[in-house]
Amino acid sequence: MTSTVERILADGKQAALDGLSQFLRWRSVSTNPSLAGETRDCANWLAEECRRSGLENVQIWETAGHPLVYADWLHAPNAATALIYGHYDVQPPEPLDLWESPPFEATIRDGSLYARGSADDKGQVYMHLVAIRALLQAEGSLPINLKLILEGEEEIGSPHLEPAIEAHLADLSCDLVVISDTSMYGLGQPALNYGLRGLAYFEIGVKGANTDLHSGGFGGAAPNPLQAMVTLLASLKDGHGRITLPGFYDDVRTIPYDERVAIQALGDDEDALRAELGLDALDGEEGYSRLERTWTRPSMDINGIWGGYSGPGSKTVLPANGGAKLSFRLVPDQDPERVAALLEAHLHDNCPPGVRLTVRQLAGSARPWLADRDHPAMAAAGRALERAFGREPVHIRSGGSIPVVTTFDQLLQAPVVMLGVSLPDSHAHAPNERFNLDCFHKGALAAAYLWGELGRPTP
Amino acid sequence: MTSTVERILADGKQAALDGLSQFLRWRSVSTNPSLAGETRDCANWLAEECRRSGLENVQIWETAGHPLVYADWLHAPNAATALIYGHYDVQPPEPLDLWESPPFEATIRDGSLYARGSADDKGQVYMHLVAIRALLQAEGSLPINLKLILEGEEEIGSPHLEPAIEAHLADLSCDLVVISDTSMYGLGQPALNYGLRGLAYFEIGVKGANTDLHSGGFGGAAPNPLQAMVTLLASLKDGHGRITLPGFYDDVRTIPYDERVAIQALGDDEDALRAELGLDALDGEEGYSRLERTWTRPSMDINGIWGGYSGPGSKTVLPANGGAKLSFRLVPDQDPERVAALLEAHLHDNCPPGVRLTVRQLAGSARPWLADRDHPAMAAAGRALERAFGREPVHIRSGGSIPVVTTFDQLLQAPVVMLGVSLPDSHAHAPNERFNLDCFHKGALAAAYLWGELGRPTP
Repeated sequence: MTSTVERILADGKQAALDGLSQFLRWRSVSTNPSLAGETRDCANWLAEECRRSGLENVQIWETAGHPLVYADWLHAPNAATALIYGHYDVQPPEPLDLWESPPFEATIRDGSLYARGSADDKGQVYMHLVAIRALLQAEGSLPINLKLILEGEEEIGSPHLEPAIEAHLADLSCDLVVISDTSMYGLGQPALNYGLRGLAYFEIGVKGANTDLHSGGFGGAAPNPLQAMVTLLASLKDGHGRITLPGFYDDVRTIPYDERVAIQALGDDEDALRAELGLDALDGEEGYSRLERTWTRPSMDINGIWGGYSGPGSKTVLPANGGAKLSFRLVPDQDPERVAALLEAHLHDNCPPGVRLTVRQLAGSARPWLADRDHPAMAAAGRALERAFGREPVHIRSGGSIPVVTTFDQLLQAPVVMLGVSLPDSHAHAPNERFNLDCFHKGALAAAYLWGELGRPTP
Repeated sequence: MTSTVERILADGKQAALDGLSQFLRWRSVSTNPSLAGETRDCANWLAEECRRSGLENVQIWETAGHPLVYADWLHAPNAATALIYGHYDVQPPEPLDLWESPPFEATIRDGSLYARGSADDKGQVYMHLVAIRALLQAEGSLPINLKLILEGEEEIGSPHLEPAIEAHLADLSCDLVVISDTSMYGLGQPALNYGLRGLAYFEIGVKGANTDLHSGGFGGAAPNPLQAMVTLLASLKDGHGRITLPGFYDDVRTIPYDERVAIQALGDDEDALRAELGLDALDGEEGYSRLERTWTRPSMDINGIWGGYSGPGSKTVLPANGGAKLSFRLVPDQDPERVAALLEAHLHDNCPPGVRLTVRQLAGSARPWLADRDHPAMAAAGRALERAFGREPVHIRSGGSIPVVTTFDQLLQAPVVMLGVSLPDSHAHAPNERFNLDCFHKGALAAAYLWGELGRPTP
């Protein structure tokens, strides 16, 4: 576990890229039912690749949806056991015309590998296989017991993961969970992520008359469900970027002063972000910096809205119905179910007469997650990242949600370490997704180092 | 001009329906460019039908869009000249799955003829041709000079009508304009319409960042253009049904007391309407009855709204852009151009930083119109309707807009009489449009009577 592993990884870079490129060819788009067969083929291929990497006891765990891939290596009797979680499913590639190279043909440009799933999350899953294979090749054994659980439904909210974990609690028991599905702070600057926001997602529907009406004959007499909807949606925020649902902030934990100082010290360049996004101003809750707003404060966004006529020209219609999707990002100690109750009460209380409102919570809720920055496993991951990247990692949080993190935290009673090495501009969920090659190779090294750091007898 | 015409019309009912059914077969959807050829074919067929009805000097007047059909009969040297206006274009039939019989195959059910355009306006145009043909057959001549101008772009806001009228001012000179494109007060109750609301129609666009963003990473930092849009749209109305644009009501003429009394006397059944529309409450400006609100007070409606994700399930996107269509119905003495200026100023003044707003006024603006209820031509039309329908007409206004009315009023300096005989529940602009057969036949009789009433030597 030293220079030999480093040399093996250095010599094996092309082979690692070739293997990852094969992984990226599968259109494992979990949300697309017509690709269910190819998603399963991807799982089978991944199981084989686990075997080829030296892992044992490789299994396909069936679910009501896409299957899970399980594998382990458990021959370090006096060492700890770590569980690696990742996912082999990907976001849809659409809109296809914005891709500069085909989304399922990995292409190297400007030091990055471009493909759907390259960063989120196939590249970071494969990085672990590369590290395991190199360690086994170098030493014939691992310094730690490892279990891998690789999911095929992360991008659709992991609807079958929790029951699968519950059904396999003994198989998955571990001292620590390692997840590589997040990004560094920036190029050359590794990071340890200790916080994620939660998520509560809703679809509302508004209905007026039983048919579209002529806006001449009925304008001023029949309720306009779109007017009711925009009024309800507008009522959810004030002019200071605050969410106005009564009681919404009750459970929001105040950021400790030392954490604000640490975030401030990261030196976030808000102007650069603003320019990159083509905006003349950023937005959000007054009194907090951009990083504080997206990491430590809740937010609400309208994700989609529809109703009435949207074709060319004018149509003098008073529409019969409309709808919108909206979602909240939550922070400790907010609870998605309580937010759902607050939202439903507020919207129903304020819906004008004549308009029928439906509020439906969609799948994919996540509780917020906040880890102990001083946990020994976090410190070990920090040393591994520093050795691999030549720079001490910063502590960061993320504005996004990874529901599985709280699921592991609660079901397995094990701390979670986020060893994420993609870059913030990896275009995850967007066209031209990419994984920086340097991050990929150094990430494999960091994973190998991490098992060395943790590979001491269980205390 | 008496029993003979009545007998000819009575004997010719089936032939009249057959002719109208042919007229209704043409998919003259003016807003649909792929049907431009069929719309022209419809104009040509209509021109032929004018000739077959005994009209002379039949012409197709070209415009930059769909053509106009002109025809006349000018052999009553000592009589007045009336100009009949109507339109042969129709609204799109979509959504097709809601039609109980094909929209372009006229079908008789329950005493009505069902087809797109049956009431609006082909049926009412054809009713005049039936009357003219019967009068010429009965007497060999008409009691009045008649000119017909039949448009193919009414449903898209008559963009080329005004220049065409200006180019043909001498051809179109007349003492009176008769338009049959409105409805009676109810089944068996004819009406004379003396007022129309105006129209100002807008499309707004909102744009945030230069790309869709992940709502986790950017929620609370990047402006959400949909949130800005709903807030702007919500700001246009208060909780009392009033439009909040500063200065919007400055030009709204107060309804005279006697007019309120007359409207009240119509005995509008608001509960029946509410039940028919499947609503638990009507809506609109406080302090006015339903008829007062839709006839004599301005209104504002969102006609369409769009942006972000509207597919199944959840997508955690912070959308880059969105848009909406909205329109105002105006009353005397409001001016569409002034309303446009008020709207643009208000929206731009209130658009939050970080969101770029565009406001575009669409074609089809109309000034409100209000006629003298005591004009002799109105009285003559009242007598004609009473003879045909066996009941004295009531005076009504309409919440809709017919831009051509003010255009004729101003360019030809001739009073306009609205001889409309469709029913309020004719489903104009909606699926299952229909024209009550009794209204159609009695409408032809009323038209014949009207020419007799007016066919006296010009004073």
